[in-house]
Amino acid sequence: MRDPIRVLVLGTGHMGSGIARLVMEKSGLELAGAYARRAEREGLDLGLAIGLHRALGIAVGTDLAATIARSKPQVAIQTTCSTLEDAANEISTLLQHHIHVVSIAEEMTYPYSRAPKLAEEIHRLAIAQRVGVVGTGINPGFVLDRLIITLTGVCTDIQSITARRVNDLSAYGATVLESQGVGLSPEAFHDGLKNGRVVGHVGFAESIHLIANAVGWDVERTEERREPIIAQTRRETPFVEVEPGQVAGCNHMAVAYRAGRSVITLIHPQQVQPEREGVATGDTIEIFGTPNVRLAGSPEIPGGIGTVAMAVNMIPTLLNAPPGLHTLSDLPAPAAMLGDARRLIGRKLTTGNTEK
Amino acid sequence: MRDPIRVLVLGTGHMGSGIARLVMEKSGLELAGAYARRAEREGLDLGLAIGLHRALGIAVGTDLAATIARSKPQVAIQTTCSTLEDAANEISTLLQHHIHVVSIAEEMTYPYSRAPKLAEEIHRLAIAQRVGVVGTGINPGFVLDRLIITLTGVCTDIQSITARRVNDLSAYGATVLESQGVGLSPEAFHDGLKNGRVVGHVGFAESIHLIANAVGWDVERTEERREPIIAQTRRETPFVEVEPGQVAGCNHMAVAYRAGRSVITLIHPQQVQPEREGVATGDTIEIFGTPNVRLAGSPEIPGGIGTVAMAVNMIPTLLNAPPGLHTLSDLPAPAAMLGDARRLIGRKLTTGNTEK
Repeated sequence: MRDPIRVLVLGTGHMGSGIARLVMEKSGLELAGAYARRAEREGLDLGLAIGLHRALGIAVGTDLAATIARSKPQVAIQTTCSTLEDAANEISTLLQHHIHVVSIAEEMTYPYSRAPKLAEEIHRLAIAQRVGVVGTGINPGFVLDRLIITLTGVCTDIQSITARRVNDLSAYGATVLESQGVGLSPEAFHDGLKNGRVVGHVGFAESIHLIANAVGWDVERTEERREPIIAQTRRETPFVEVEPGQVAGCNHMAVAYRAGRSVITLIHPQQVQPEREGVATGDTIEIFGTPNVRLAGSPEIPGGIGTVAMAVNMIPTLLNAPPGLHTLSDLPAPAAMLGDARRLIGRKLTTGNTEK
Repeated sequence: MRDPIRVLVLGTGHMGSGIARLVMEKSGLELAGAYARRAEREGLDLGLAIGLHRALGIAVGTDLAATIARSKPQVAIQTTCSTLEDAANEISTLLQHHIHVVSIAEEMTYPYSRAPKLAEEIHRLAIAQRVGVVGTGINPGFVLDRLIITLTGVCTDIQSITARRVNDLSAYGATVLESQGVGLSPEAFHDGLKNGRVVGHVGFAESIHLIANAVGWDVERTEERREPIIAQTRRETPFVEVEPGQVAGCNHMAVAYRAGRSVITLIHPQQVQPEREGVATGDTIEIFGTPNVRLAGSPEIPGGIGTVAMAVNMIPTLLNAPPGLHTLSDLPAPAAMLGDARRLIGRKLTTGNTEK
């Protein structure tokens, strides 16, 4: 059998570490190295950097080109950032070295939404270098877009789509909680919306464009609303205490309009300890059309481990795809990779299914 | 804009008629003609054949090659049969005329399962003729395979998968009811299983192979069980009367084993008037893994209109795919086609997403 697929992980934070550990577990993949942006990580042993209790004898690099030269990866998984602007330099460097790229940057799920020119440049570079690039994740990337698009396939017609993802922020630390305004007074929450410290969910524009584009709707405008979820009872996590009257989270929703009518409504309230007030977490998709389709699950598909899984499971799909910048609706859905990754390479999409 | 995509429909029964009518409704598609197997349909006006109240001025043909010559289709949708053996001649003729084929024959969802040699021949012929072939449907084809495979993508590991589809046969006529043993005594049901008149669900082998193949599991054996659903109360439809103690339907399940352990369990009880005994129809998928995933919807995604939708929505996906015989896990999921079909052609899978 061919050699294992060498994987470079960009970023050694929570996501990067989880992805690196999963790459190590998977047959047919080999963790080739890791790159970190923070200078103080230079030379740190990769095993310790990703939370193993043993050294791997591989040094984390903070110079991407040098790290590539040392680790000789075939695929890289980027976990260093959220925006396309921020992601683009690392992606370009990887492509120039003929390395396929899976990115969990939210905007990379549909890069044509926020930065079409930059997306087109990446697409051309990827084609020129004969490798593929794709963004993935759970949200954006799965629950509020891929899963919806997949379900629309059973419909002959659709009037509107509504989906809701209710999750629990209790496990998250200061950065995430601050971006959702948790622990603020309602006034401070509204100030935070104005000064950009309270952000809510990142990814609605991407999800809406993915859906609209997949079904062929011309969306004329999208409205986003962010409202504070005011605690009625005390809520507490290791990272924050929320008194009644304070903000427990952000109820963020986006509505897309077509011909003056709302056609896509995505609702994503994020808060700490929703169960304190009888709110169950979960994912719900409702398609109003022919036929109506309704699918729901509780608790929600978890964002953290789910994103780790999607990023690694995407590797064979990307290696089998033609060169270029892809979006989730032009590639087959990645499945869980429970066998040897190498067995999945080369059998699909090249000359059709050649399996027997 | 280019000319509409010309579509030939094979079969003018319930499915074929529904598909033909949907093709007529869709922008960018043109119903080019219809082929029927039954000699008495020769020359019948297509509009009348598919249940319209007006003539279309197109004659139904019963000689496939002649019908192709007359209708000059780019794509054909086959609704004439269930098995690959039965489907293969028509498919070969279509391929020889450079026509892409979408088939709703159950075995075509994963033709490598029951007839690997024939599947390979079709694959080679399709490549030689530079066109694509794919099987689709709701079950097999969606609820108990594609949707499951798509959901596995969020998992780093999976111990087992269980899915259940509970549906209602009340709308179906004699042929379907007989194949499920509806109205029989329990003894006659068991005799029917032996003599092949009671069949249960067609498609478990395909769904299990699709799932196992997608996640990389080597399934060592599959067991199927068919049990009568005995009515406790009287049930009645326009087509059948079932007294208490008689058979209201067939509870058919399939279990796939790997390393001696059951890893995939698919359960599909089909009966008339399940609500009479408090049984709700619906689809449920449970993945036991990391993370656990559970998604459910009630009522079930309807098989009839759903299959009509999937077959037509598959057209742009197939036209964008490389030549060959495809299975659902090597193509992107078809989405509802709500805009002009022609806008979807050529933008995907060839050089990656070239959309801006």
